[in-house]
Amino acid sequence: MGHSLVAGVDIGGTCIRAGLVSEQGEILSSREWPTRDFPEPEKLVNLLAIECQKMAEEHSGYTWVGTGIGAPNGNFFRGTIEFAPNLSWKGIVPLAEQIEQKTGKTCLLTNDANAGALGEMLFGAAKNMHDFLFITLGTGLGSGIVCGGRLVYGHDGFAGELGHVIVNPGGRLCGCGRKGCLETYCSATGLIMTYREIHSGGKPESFGKPQNITAKHIYELAMQGEAEALNAFEQFSKTLGEALANAVAITSPESIFLFGGLASADDLIIPKTKKYMEASLLPIFQNKVQILCSGLPENDAAILGAASLVWNQLKKS
Amino acid sequence: MGHSLVAGVDIGGTCIRAGLVSEQGEILSSREWPTRDFPEPEKLVNLLAIECQKMAEEHSGYTWVGTGIGAPNGNFFRGTIEFAPNLSWKGIVPLAEQIEQKTGKTCLLTNDANAGALGEMLFGAAKNMHDFLFITLGTGLGSGIVCGGRLVYGHDGFAGELGHVIVNPGGRLCGCGRKGCLETYCSATGLIMTYREIHSGGKPESFGKPQNITAKHIYELAMQGEAEALNAFEQFSKTLGEALANAVAITSPESIFLFGGLASADDLIIPKTKKYMEASLLPIFQNKVQILCSGLPENDAAILGAASLVWNQLKKS
Repeated sequence: MGHSLVAGVDIGGTCIRAGLVSEQGEILSSREWPTRDFPEPEKLVNLLAIECQKMAEEHSGYTWVGTGIGAPNGNFFRGTIEFAPNLSWKGIVPLAEQIEQKTGKTCLLTNDANAGALGEMLFGAAKNMHDFLFITLGTGLGSGIVCGGRLVYGHDGFAGELGHVIVNPGGRLCGCGRKGCLETYCSATGLIMTYREIHSGGKPESFGKPQNITAKHIYELAMQGEAEALNAFEQFSKTLGEALANAVAITSPESIFLFGGLASADDLIIPKTKKYMEASLLPIFQNKVQILCSGLPENDAAILGAASLVWNQLKKS
Repeated sequence: MGHSLVAGVDIGGTCIRAGLVSEQGEILSSREWPTRDFPEPEKLVNLLAIECQKMAEEHSGYTWVGTGIGAPNGNFFRGTIEFAPNLSWKGIVPLAEQIEQKTGKTCLLTNDANAGALGEMLFGAAKNMHDFLFITLGTGLGSGIVCGGRLVYGHDGFAGELGHVIVNPGGRLCGCGRKGCLETYCSATGLIMTYREIHSGGKPESFGKPQNITAKHIYELAMQGEAEALNAFEQFSKTLGEALANAVAITSPESIFLFGGLASADDLIIPKTKKYMEASLLPIFQNKVQILCSGLPENDAAILGAASLVWNQLKKS
């Protein structure tokens, strides 16, 4: 396996990136395309087969041995992307099988957060850890759970939906159609909604100014000491900390990794989230569980995570 | 392994039971002692070594090969019972090591609910299942989680504390010292509290009559159609169903097994809990997860579960 390369492919709503990843987690080459260029998955299958081979040929002595894919609503067991809300592909797309047939090499697929968790274990800050949670804080909240050194897929391959734990029954309407999911509070979108509610005196219907604020703006305001922005981060951390305490009671991790721009927002999230988590933890878990910033480089994490699906399998066999 | 026997030992607050269990899950012999007879663990270690050997000698052709123990606050990794609230043993008791030294045979230990989950997988209704939750409804609420055919112990061996997920922040005071834990609502104790609250018009401080009602009484009243008792079971099922929906989002099980007297309370819990769980489930999990009554015989479940700790390891090796 010394000179093998695995293609890691990240399928996002805006762009698709592919890179060749070495056993040590180096990305030797990469490519990027707009997602809208692929109205049908077949076009992507054909392009990946050609482009990954081209990239591999740039590195003499290396062989491209397989492809890992991270995609929204990706199902590991079936190798499918199922009803992905951010893609124009409809229904259930058997992408892993199509890529295996086209390339003649193994192809594994899962969702972005699961891929990220494996990436953290193989190439990030969770090396040598067997039990941890990996949480992505972006537009939504995704999670991957590693127990006993293995990713938890569950019976149907969709385990790890911590973002859709209901933390406030009857609360904010979520994209999934239900109300009060964790990700409606603890994500960039949730932070913005909380900030607007604070500005409007708690009335969620009548959002006051500023209308088009971003999570980054709120972060900057908080760093300048604006009370409302600091309050929004405080509420974010309280809701996240309490939800993590419940997740700890179920899975008992060694560490919890937070990934994404918000996670690294200086001291605005991690220390506060830790404080609220500890206050809600069952005594037997107190002062045992770390909350850490992901050790994966933000721009390359998706490719590394996707490739680690195949690297993880190669290392086991 | 055809003629091996494993001792299953159940350590409870009232009594300690030990039985020899065959590979097929038959209990060939068993013994029972009052827990108060063992103010020091050493006395139990000595007795078990003698009694299990005696029982084994009653069955010619069989060999006693190891001991599995289910105990409150049992830790699998360390083989310890740690600060068990219902036992007079103080601090951390390295019981598995003591039994191994005395008997010269392997000894494994975990908590009651984890042992029950393994028992369900080896000898009960979860045969051939790889992903399920096992929930004990007794004085409290315990849980064991099986993912990918393996029990989830977590980093420190205490995973699976679903009873201590906080479902109502600031709610009922729990034995763990925090407020609003699931088991303060969904257990025999919780059912009684709910019933009393209903009788006192919702004021938890001023419990009305009847003071000394048991969960069994409430069950009988519900079967007679008493509105308050039916209401108490309805609230029980709603809280449990919503908590299970959140646990499903994290672990994606094939089935959820309920164990204990309350679980088999005719149609008062399972169908209603299923209804409330479905109403709270993320769409991708709807109509996929069964809620079933445990297939373990109630009186023998603890011994079978404890023995399955060792049988599970023998079958893997």
